[in-house]
Amino acid sequence: MGNTLVGQSGGPTAVINSSLAGVIRCVKDMQIGKVYGMHNGIEGFLKDDVIDIDDHITDLRDLSLLKRTPAAYLGSCRYKLPEVEGHEEVYKKIFDLLKKYDIDNFLYIGGNDSMDTVYKLSTYAYEHGRSERFIGIPKTIDNDLPVTDHCPGFGSAAKFVATSMKEIIRDNYSFGATEPKLCVVEIMGRNAGWLTAASALAKDEDGPGPDLIYLPEVPFDMDLFLSRIKDLTKRKRCVVVACSEGIHLEDGTLVCEMGDYYEHVDAFGHKMLSGAGRVLANAIGRETGYNVRNVELSILQRCAAHMASRVDVDEAYNVGYLAVQAADRGETGKMVTIQCVNREPYYVNYTLTDVRSVATIEKKVPREWITADDAYVTRDYIRYASPLLIGTILPYEARGVPKHMSL
Amino acid sequence: MGNTLVGQSGGPTAVINSSLAGVIRCVKDMQIGKVYGMHNGIEGFLKDDVIDIDDHITDLRDLSLLKRTPAAYLGSCRYKLPEVEGHEEVYKKIFDLLKKYDIDNFLYIGGNDSMDTVYKLSTYAYEHGRSERFIGIPKTIDNDLPVTDHCPGFGSAAKFVATSMKEIIRDNYSFGATEPKLCVVEIMGRNAGWLTAASALAKDEDGPGPDLIYLPEVPFDMDLFLSRIKDLTKRKRCVVVACSEGIHLEDGTLVCEMGDYYEHVDAFGHKMLSGAGRVLANAIGRETGYNVRNVELSILQRCAAHMASRVDVDEAYNVGYLAVQAADRGETGKMVTIQCVNREPYYVNYTLTDVRSVATIEKKVPREWITADDAYVTRDYIRYASPLLIGTILPYEARGVPKHMSL
Repeated sequence: MGNTLVGQSGGPTAVINSSLAGVIRCVKDMQIGKVYGMHNGIEGFLKDDVIDIDDHITDLRDLSLLKRTPAAYLGSCRYKLPEVEGHEEVYKKIFDLLKKYDIDNFLYIGGNDSMDTVYKLSTYAYEHGRSERFIGIPKTIDNDLPVTDHCPGFGSAAKFVATSMKEIIRDNYSFGATEPKLCVVEIMGRNAGWLTAASALAKDEDGPGPDLIYLPEVPFDMDLFLSRIKDLTKRKRCVVVACSEGIHLEDGTLVCEMGDYYEHVDAFGHKMLSGAGRVLANAIGRETGYNVRNVELSILQRCAAHMASRVDVDEAYNVGYLAVQAADRGETGKMVTIQCVNREPYYVNYTLTDVRSVATIEKKVPREWITADDAYVTRDYIRYASPLLIGTILPYEARGVPKHMSL
Repeated sequence: MGNTLVGQSGGPTAVINSSLAGVIRCVKDMQIGKVYGMHNGIEGFLKDDVIDIDDHITDLRDLSLLKRTPAAYLGSCRYKLPEVEGHEEVYKKIFDLLKKYDIDNFLYIGGNDSMDTVYKLSTYAYEHGRSERFIGIPKTIDNDLPVTDHCPGFGSAAKFVATSMKEIIRDNYSFGATEPKLCVVEIMGRNAGWLTAASALAKDEDGPGPDLIYLPEVPFDMDLFLSRIKDLTKRKRCVVVACSEGIHLEDGTLVCEMGDYYEHVDAFGHKMLSGAGRVLANAIGRETGYNVRNVELSILQRCAAHMASRVDVDEAYNVGYLAVQAADRGETGKMVTIQCVNREPYYVNYTLTDVRSVATIEKKVPREWITADDAYVTRDYIRYASPLLIGTILPYEARGVPKHMSL
């Protein structure tokens, strides 16, 4: 019986290490050899940069701490495996290394591009009569993988977005306004607006949500936006806008590239892109004369393990655990998916899907979950996303600051 | 026996409502009349905008929720009371209203300017033979009030800064760098660097802190900064810088105003100030050619009640509670202070200080707590700040998002 190799790839999340913990725990439970980690994903593996997990993680306490540690414990990469044709040597190298470490199970935690890696390797193995199994473990705050109901990493990022949005709105309402308080909050999401939509979850009976929510799924209309803002400022003392970093005009122009509204130009004349939120804030300021605050949630939204969703941490752990079981029973070229059996009370099943049905495909927010005015999300989105935020996994603290597991 | 009037003023914090909860609870415990709230501080009070707390907060559950609610529950203001001379009518109005509501105890939760309000009103009362008592309750994330060891609001903001910094650094280290990962994090603090210094608390045996920390207490040298960055990028794969929004050059020029490095100019030629962090990030980018990420913690650092420090919430509550007791026993023109008896184990006393010794005076980070190279803080700062972050007050959650108390 061979060993298990696991890697992390793409942008880190608050729970990517929980999936790693699930993998390690399952291998230990099943007593099926050793776990090796790729240091910095497949890119590191190609340089034979391999970590023997037993040297670092030895007990349940380590695993509990690993579950609470944000960002990629093993290190990540943004390496896209080339096609076999013309790059046979890359594949030979990988399979030689798999042999060197006696690997049976190759597990890769990541998003679309990582699933492409799993697909290519499993296909190569099949075509060359190799016995190694290749299983993908979903991970992305963008929540844009198809087939699976949602992706581990999304729930915690959404919890951070909804909570921060609620806190920001409350802060904005603190002042008795002489002029309207305006704020634009920019949220991650180049092509899919799942995470930006989570700002709607800030709204509850105890407080309002953002006034407008703009996703990259629908074209952005600057004139309409500004007229809405002017209308809102007549009626309200606070106006808060959530926008995806990737919003764009009908013609495809990214709002963050709308240099006629705003651009930074440095002393050498280099143009530096502002974020979409900055462009909107400046456009409002120009139109209304009011001060407008721009908040970018930036990388905080993907690394805030201090408020990880319990549902998300548990599911991330489970998909890792189940990936080992799947590989062990001979499955390959598959990704573990989460299937929602019931939303309230919340209950899920886990299944496998052909990784080809996932690789490089982006799932977007359905048009019917975006309101007809293109500036909010519907109750269907709320029903979909709400259960994914439930509960909090408390960090272990030392002197008031979360402890992390470090390599 | 008369009633108690309480107001909130200045920038909100994660725990300003915990002080309000302490005030309300003490009045109830002592059975000394009603509690009225100023809606939007003294500015609202001058318009007779007064809230009867009994209409809104009726039981212990409400008070527990109030303690967990960020931003000013009563609403805040940035109104500076004018001098008596030439503005006697303002003071007459205030004292007429105090009489109308049968107020004995006037409590004001705020920072330097708010303490100036307490000072002016108590002085006016003294000079006009009025019996009302005026007590200040300290509050500021800037931690810049003198006499008191530290200010309620600071500990929670520092916990957010240290935790976020630790998570950001870990995120930055996720990638096996082909080129150095560079990140500049801008933290609030115009004149005092207490909060920016808290980024040093991210460092522990399980991970590094920022590489450089720049406070507004010492002049910033751009050439020296860039040469340090170049040196660091030769030795390290990640370089993270923390800077106060208020850092400035030897000649007093604010870094955020260094337009020769960077400025936004809109279509009408209006100059828009970048933040100091953006200027540093752009300056590094220009000098090294590397991509540099700029993260602004922005208002998140003052409203993140979801990770409020337990020590901070408790102390904020206590200074509110003790302010009522002080007023009730006839004290006036005073501010409640926190005096640290022992740092480890942590133990404090509360005393009163003449509000004149506090009003409009800013306490800065002592020069000897900043390292000789002007780019970090010493162990003395760490020993000072560390106990203030300890513990977490858990939010009450509904559907995975914190609940707040709203007016």
